[in-house]
Amino acid sequence: MLAAHVMTGFLDLLRAELPDRAIVTDPDRIAPWLTDWRGRYRGRAAALVEPATTAEVAAVVRAAAATRTPVVPQGGNTGMVGGATPDEEGGAAILSLRRLHRIRSIDADANVAVAEAGVVLQMLNDRALERERRFPLTLGARGSATIGGLVSTNAGGTQVLRFGTMRGLVAGVEAVLADGSVHDGLAALPKDNRGYNLDQLLIGAEGTLGIVTAAALRLVPAVAARAVAWAGLRSPEVAMALLRHCRSHTDRIESFEIMPAESLRAVLAHLPAARAPLAGEHPWHVLIEATAPDLDGEAPTALLERLLSDALEAGLADDAVVAASEAQADAFWTIRDSISAAERAQGPATQHDISVPVPAMPRFMIDAAAACEARFPGCHASGFGHLGDGNVHFHVRAPAGVDPDRWYRDTAPEVTRFVHDLVTAAGGSISAEHGIGQMKRDELARLLPPARLRAMRAIKAALDPLGILNPGKLVPLAPGPDRQ
Amino acid sequence: MLAAHVMTGFLDLLRAELPDRAIVTDPDRIAPWLTDWRGRYRGRAAALVEPATTAEVAAVVRAAAATRTPVVPQGGNTGMVGGATPDEEGGAAILSLRRLHRIRSIDADANVAVAEAGVVLQMLNDRALERERRFPLTLGARGSATIGGLVSTNAGGTQVLRFGTMRGLVAGVEAVLADGSVHDGLAALPKDNRGYNLDQLLIGAEGTLGIVTAAALRLVPAVAARAVAWAGLRSPEVAMALLRHCRSHTDRIESFEIMPAESLRAVLAHLPAARAPLAGEHPWHVLIEATAPDLDGEAPTALLERLLSDALEAGLADDAVVAASEAQADAFWTIRDSISAAERAQGPATQHDISVPVPAMPRFMIDAAAACEARFPGCHASGFGHLGDGNVHFHVRAPAGVDPDRWYRDTAPEVTRFVHDLVTAAGGSISAEHGIGQMKRDELARLLPPARLRAMRAIKAALDPLGILNPGKLVPLAPGPDRQ
Repeated sequence: MLAAHVMTGFLDLLRAELPDRAIVTDPDRIAPWLTDWRGRYRGRAAALVEPATTAEVAAVVRAAAATRTPVVPQGGNTGMVGGATPDEEGGAAILSLRRLHRIRSIDADANVAVAEAGVVLQMLNDRALERERRFPLTLGARGSATIGGLVSTNAGGTQVLRFGTMRGLVAGVEAVLADGSVHDGLAALPKDNRGYNLDQLLIGAEGTLGIVTAAALRLVPAVAARAVAWAGLRSPEVAMALLRHCRSHTDRIESFEIMPAESLRAVLAHLPAARAPLAGEHPWHVLIEATAPDLDGEAPTALLERLLSDALEAGLADDAVVAASEAQADAFWTIRDSISAAERAQGPATQHDISVPVPAMPRFMIDAAAACEARFPGCHASGFGHLGDGNVHFHVRAPAGVDPDRWYRDTAPEVTRFVHDLVTAAGGSISAEHGIGQMKRDELARLLPPARLRAMRAIKAALDPLGILNPGKLVPLAPGPDRQ
Repeated sequence: MLAAHVMTGFLDLLRAELPDRAIVTDPDRIAPWLTDWRGRYRGRAAALVEPATTAEVAAVVRAAAATRTPVVPQGGNTGMVGGATPDEEGGAAILSLRRLHRIRSIDADANVAVAEAGVVLQMLNDRALERERRFPLTLGARGSATIGGLVSTNAGGTQVLRFGTMRGLVAGVEAVLADGSVHDGLAALPKDNRGYNLDQLLIGAEGTLGIVTAAALRLVPAVAARAVAWAGLRSPEVAMALLRHCRSHTDRIESFEIMPAESLRAVLAHLPAARAPLAGEHPWHVLIEATAPDLDGEAPTALLERLLSDALEAGLADDAVVAASEAQADAFWTIRDSISAAERAQGPATQHDISVPVPAMPRFMIDAAAACEARFPGCHASGFGHLGDGNVHFHVRAPAGVDPDRWYRDTAPEVTRFVHDLVTAAGGSISAEHGIGQMKRDELARLLPPARLRAMRAIKAALDPLGILNPGKLVPLAPGPDRQ
């Protein structure tokens, strides 16, 4: 009842400042946004607010601050950790950024685009391409993930090897802070030493320190040519040596993805149309992509052929093929991109988005899998993904024949804690690219170094003293909004 | 007296934990560290503490916290804004990081070095070169500037165009926080989304949020070949067009420095051995450096000759020459690096390290100079430096014949405020690369957007609640230490 009263006050304030269409209280229209896209979390919300400008977002946050109403920012709602899903109390409002969907500018000379929070990644890439530029970050959800969410989760993807995560690609952030003031970092000054970098603090903060409304983003030349290769090899160590061989000869390698034989087999079983890129059996596989921004110099295909020919001779690969056509290149990528779905189809499993220091990853992949299989007999463990970033998706599959519900309830949490302990012991991160959200918040409290945890809590309390910005996400034990 | 009492308590605590040689109270040994290297600021300090390990730094900060003693971190003491100089009260201790001078590791495969705060930049570069690597940041003070200071001031220099400032080159930070706990970010995980990025917050914080004790730094391949060119041209706009022409054809341009004719004339007058690179007169000049990491492909000399030949044809330069030898290349750089000293020798002037959005800089250079000369008759204004970073050093020279002391006292502050107002109106920064320290603190309070200023103060209060870390620097009106 108290919550309902608060919400009424919040909505009254909003109605004075926002057009009616921006305030949604019809439960049927709110319902689609109460669940994360994996369906793991389901929350409640009495209102969905859809501002269309930064000024309107500021009005929403001011109203939230005045009434101490929690707001849960939401973009494409494609997050992996429940970060955009409200809690079950129903006292929060969902703050959708989807109507902030303008690309404010693309400066092809300066290689900077300014895009609002609700711009879908694919749309930005399409628009940049018209100017012979690209924004060098891509991921599976590019058709729905929005700039605001990508900034707020410091998204990664398959080009981090060359271009880094969002943190390195964001030249400036515009955001509404917890008191409703607007921080404008869009001037995108390459050099600005006027104190603490708010832009960097907002990147990856999952909407807990401010609501990102726009970002200035670095562009690079469009791809004029690319080549995709597939190699079979003995071990993750050899794969790392192959990557270093390639990178010591060129800076054109954009992707280097590793998979074990069983991931390939899972995909081939899952996708009837898929074909194995190599004829023989190999314990491990890598997909390599190289690009060139123009048609001068050595073509990427010739580059990869030369690098892989040397690698075969040096024992860094046992077989390799460079895709002969764009269609074959796409087919290689389809295999890589289908692993998660294919492995899920094999039965219950836990997935872990983890990183360790890059040089330690090959050994970690082998040792952690062995440790998991010893600790949980009958389970099968393996990692695949972004070897060169020190980041793999580490899956532990339940023994055949178990009852899925029971295994998820009784064993999966223990498996996850075990994997997280291994990662932490290796100096790694329990969240490499997906963030913390609500899914990993308690594990973060358990495992984050105390100094870092205290600093996080202090920063949260300093910049959101009322606890209205996405409460319950990211920051373990953050104070909730004071509703007395 | 109270201050003396506090200092005694601080020193007593230190003596229990640190070796005697780490605690200096002899005024003669402290004296050299009480003045910044430009001689603008002079402070007092009752003690100089020289820990040799991170654990010892932590002990110093714990003792400072227990006795509320302000500590002023100091590295090479080559800062430009008085950030490492204590105030005149004498109640602070200087915390020198110079004894933390180990390079802990250089991993040439992973391209990461871990260097302690007291490592001198030149030493890191020398050691990296032995492994055919380099740390791609350089500046005039490289023989004395230390890693801790470079991190804490987010240093720039002449290679930012290609490699960015320290912010982009630091893979992780180790620092002692205000409660004496150690934050260890040295695992240098390329992907780590466990909440707010403390490393990024400590970069450029000028020791006000934590004492940086070591950093993990990205390396790149050593330079196998370089070329340096000089071009004469009509205007900053044309210079920007020339830069874009170059960068649209190659990513090998590392430096692109602009100077007006009068800067060149000042250097030629100041350095008798210097010779003008080009025969004729040109209103503006640029120095361009390109490098290559290996001897494959087009040599940098050929590359610059090709780019400049096209540029001459397209009207983007009126004359140009590529240095024919390393000696000539060095001579070109000597001209560029001598501008500040040469212009200082011409008489009293104010120097401003400022930035505006990159595309706006050519126009700003012209308009701001004209505005200054109109507002302060007889003065001469001009900018030179890092055009491609949107960062120039903007100098306003006093009219001939003025009394220097009087001009510095009566007019210079007004000139500086005028320039800062122009920069702020253009959406720029009053500190592009030198930081705020004590020199620009009050101007920051006057000109920083209120939302950003409030956020800075809140972060400072959250992470250094006792105000013991470099008080009075960077953060305007930060609460001082409570000494009751």
